[in-house]
This record gives sequence, structure tokens and C-alpha cells, in this order.
Amino acid sequence: MEKGILLYEGKAKQIFQTENENELWISYKDDATAFNGEKKETLLGKARLNNEITSLIFAYLHENGVESHFVKRISETEQLVQKVEIIPLEVVVRNVVAGSMAKRLGIEEGTALTEPIVEFYYKDDALGDPLVTEDHIAILNVASNADLAVLREKAKDVNKHLINLFDNLNVRLIDFKLEFGRTSEGDILLADEISPDTCRLWDKETNQRFDKDLFRRNLGSLQEGYQEILSRLGGASCTK
Amino acid sequence: MEKGILLYEGKAKQIFQTENENELWISYKDDATAFNGEKKETLLGKARLNNEITSLIFAYLHENGVESHFVKRISETEQLVQKVEIIPLEVVVRNVVAGSMAKRLGIEEGTALTEPIVEFYYKDDALGDPLVTEDHIAILNVASNADLAVLREKAKDVNKHLINLFDNLNVRLIDFKLEFGRTSEGDILLADEISPDTCRLWDKETNQRFDKDLFRRNLGSLQEGYQEILSRLGGASCTK
Repeated sequence: MEKGILLYEGKAKQIFQTENENELWISYKDDATAFNGEKKETLLGKARLNNEITSLIFAYLHENGVESHFVKRISETEQLVQKVEIIPLEVVVRNVVAGSMAKRLGIEEGTALTEPIVEFYYKDDALGDPLVTEDHIAILNVASNADLAVLREKAKDVNKHLINLFDNLNVRLIDFKLEFGRTSEGDILLADEISPDTCRLWDKETNQRFDKDLFRRNLGSLQEGYQEILSRLGGASCTK
Repeated sequence: MEKGILLYEGKAKQIFQTENENELWISYKDDATAFNGEKKETLLGKARLNNEITSLIFAYLHENGVESHFVKRISETEQLVQKVEIIPLEVVVRNVVAGSMAKRLGIEEGTALTEPIVEFYYKDDALGDPLVTEDHIAILNVASNADLAVLREKAKDVNKHLINLFDNLNVRLIDFKLEFGRTSEGDILLADEISPDTCRLWDKETNQRFDKDLFRRNLGSLQEGYQEILSRLGGASCTK
């Protein structure tokens, strides 16, 4: 397997062609960004941590019957995935009020929700990834109502499994962002990454943050927080 | 009928008690505000124009079977309304993309929608009246899912009648904001005002603006635009 041409470079990952037209080569970057790119830093080790964590989580989901684009980890910072066409929606699941939801609604961060909720944000850097309603999504023509029902169902299913996973590690899953893609057969498949870049993860006893809020809010070492998640996931052996 | 104590003062109206505990006395103000109060001016005549226009529109809706809190016009700038407890949601109906929707979704202002859409904004000045989803509304505990279905239905019904009204006046109804309240019997009733402060109204042929965008965007005389709407509504005789 060899890395082909660079197809796309995002804020946290590069995506390369492979000799297999149905597979892509993802290379994680050490770059951390927040506030739509306004805050930016290079944090050595972040690429490895997110690649390892995402690989472990997608493998765990696969074992629990939840398919994703993940094929295999190739190196410390790289993984192979199935090629999909990304649906330009951030699908956010929230179990506890935090971040933009706390600000939007004026509700204290840390307030538990009686039921998880799903929100959709339109993936568009120039627009600042705005919250959108189902009507907006229909107007933007990025997903049908039937697609949205599938996204909601899949997102809630992932949530159920991730809550179980993290609960056993003494970690509270506050919220997380998923992205989905369409396969060449037209099926909707979980894609992107699941890591402390895309989840809020708090220690169940101390409320210590192990996620990107460490960077966003200058709360401490991002790498130490992410390493704690990797270690609790039992991935210490991958961290050589 | 006498005006009692001032119960509430908003950006565009004062609300007074009356000797009838089921009725309130609304006095329109000449103040214009935009961008959550950041832009503010006194525009002589605005109170009269909005009071007259709202009175004519609520009377028109009543003739067409749509009930509201409106009881009667008392003076050039005042009206009597049924007392309701306002539901803290701005119910926005859009027929054509404009304003915040154009910005949010990156769609050109003036783009017609194939079907009207309804949006909900949480009425909270400190939060900047944010767009909210039905899940958010449930969490905020301001309206039930059944209430939201009623609000959507009533808003679309008002839209249908207002489109008819304005179409006959050679005016395009771009979008508008409604507020609803609960009566002492618990019924949901259309409330607040319907005026060029709360609607976007464009001349069908020239796209000339007759609404608050005249003030927001410094496009010309607000009073001349509002007077044009009042005149086309046949309210010229009220404008003595």
C-alpha cells in the first residue's frame, strides 16, 4: 500500500489517494485549532494520540455492530479508511450542556440533559459552521429528511455505545461531533474521527477535562489529557 | 377606559394595566432599535404608523377567521389588547431568503423558497435572541411539542392570509416575526404586533423596501416606507 497524491488538507488531517480507488490514506497533523481557526498551535504528539484513539474507538464500535469508514491503522499517525463522500453536516450529540449550547441557551455548563439531543451544524468555515434546522438542511439540499432520520438514529446509537465505553473508564461523555459520508453504493457511513478533538470527556469524579477544551480554554496540557484517555482505553502499548 | 400602571416597557412599546384585568393598554413608541439595541434612534411618527398598521392587519386577520389579542385601536398610538402570557419565542416565517437566514446559510438575499419555513428564536436579549431547535425549546421548558405544532400551524395560516393581503397591494411578503401568548384559559393566541417593524415588505416590481431594513441598513426614510404600507392598506384616513 502506497500513499498517493494529497486530495485534501483540513485543519487536523491530510487525506491522500491510495492505489485502491475505494480507500483513502489519512495522516493526522499535530496542529490544534479552535474558534474557526482563530486560535492555532502545533502540539507535538497530538497527531499520534488522535490517530490511536480514533482507531481504538472505531474498532470498539465495529465490535459492537456499528460500522464506520475505518479500515486499519497504518502507522502511529496514519490510518486507512473507506472512501466516502462527506455529508457537510456536523452531527452533534449532547448528554450534558456545555460549550456553545451553554452559551446559546444561557444554561450552566455541566447541566445534565434528561435525554440526549442531536443538533446539526452546516460544515462551512466561511459561515462559521452555523447551527441549522431540518428546514435549512432541506434548503441547502445536503440531506433529505430520510437521511436526517438515519443520521439521528446512527448518532444516538454511537452515543449509547460510547457512553458504555467511557463510563467503564470513569469518564463522562459530555458531547461529541460526528461526520458521516455516503459510500459509492449510496449508504450512509460513520466517518471522520472520534477523539478528544471531537468529544468532551470529563473525569467522572473530578470533572477534570481530557479534551480540546484544554487547548480552547488554556486549562492545561492537551497532550497529557489526550494521553490519559488513550491510557484508559488500554492503548498504552501503542504509544511507544 | 383608563390607563393603569406601567407593567412593562419594551424597545418599541409600553404596556399598561387597565381597569379590566383581562385587557392591557399598549402604547407604541417612536423608538427604533436594531442589532439587539446597538443601533437606536427616535423616529417621529413610527408609533402612529405601527399602531395603525398593526390594528388594520389584526382586523383583517379577524375577518379571515384568525384570532389575535387585538381588541381595538384607542388612539393614534395606542390600542387595547387581551391580556396573555407571552411565550418567549419569536416565531419567524420566511417565504424568501433575507436577513439573518441569508447570512447564516450563505444564500443570496431574495432567493424564493419553494415552501415557507418556520423558525423559532428564543426571546432573550442577553443571549441575542438565538435560533433554537425543538429540542432546545423542550430543554428551556417554554413550550411543549404540541404547543410547537400549534405555533407552526397558526404561523403558516397567518402567512397564507398575509400573502393574500399584501399581494393585492403589490407588496411581496418576504418574512415576518410573530409572537404568541397563552390566555387565562390556556389557549394559544396570536399577540404582539404585525407591522413593518416585524415584517420584510418589498415592492413587487421595484423591490423597494418598506420595512425596518430602511433603518437597519440606512436605505432611506423609515417613515416614508411605513406610510406607503399604511396608504396601500387603505389606512390613509387614519393618518390625519
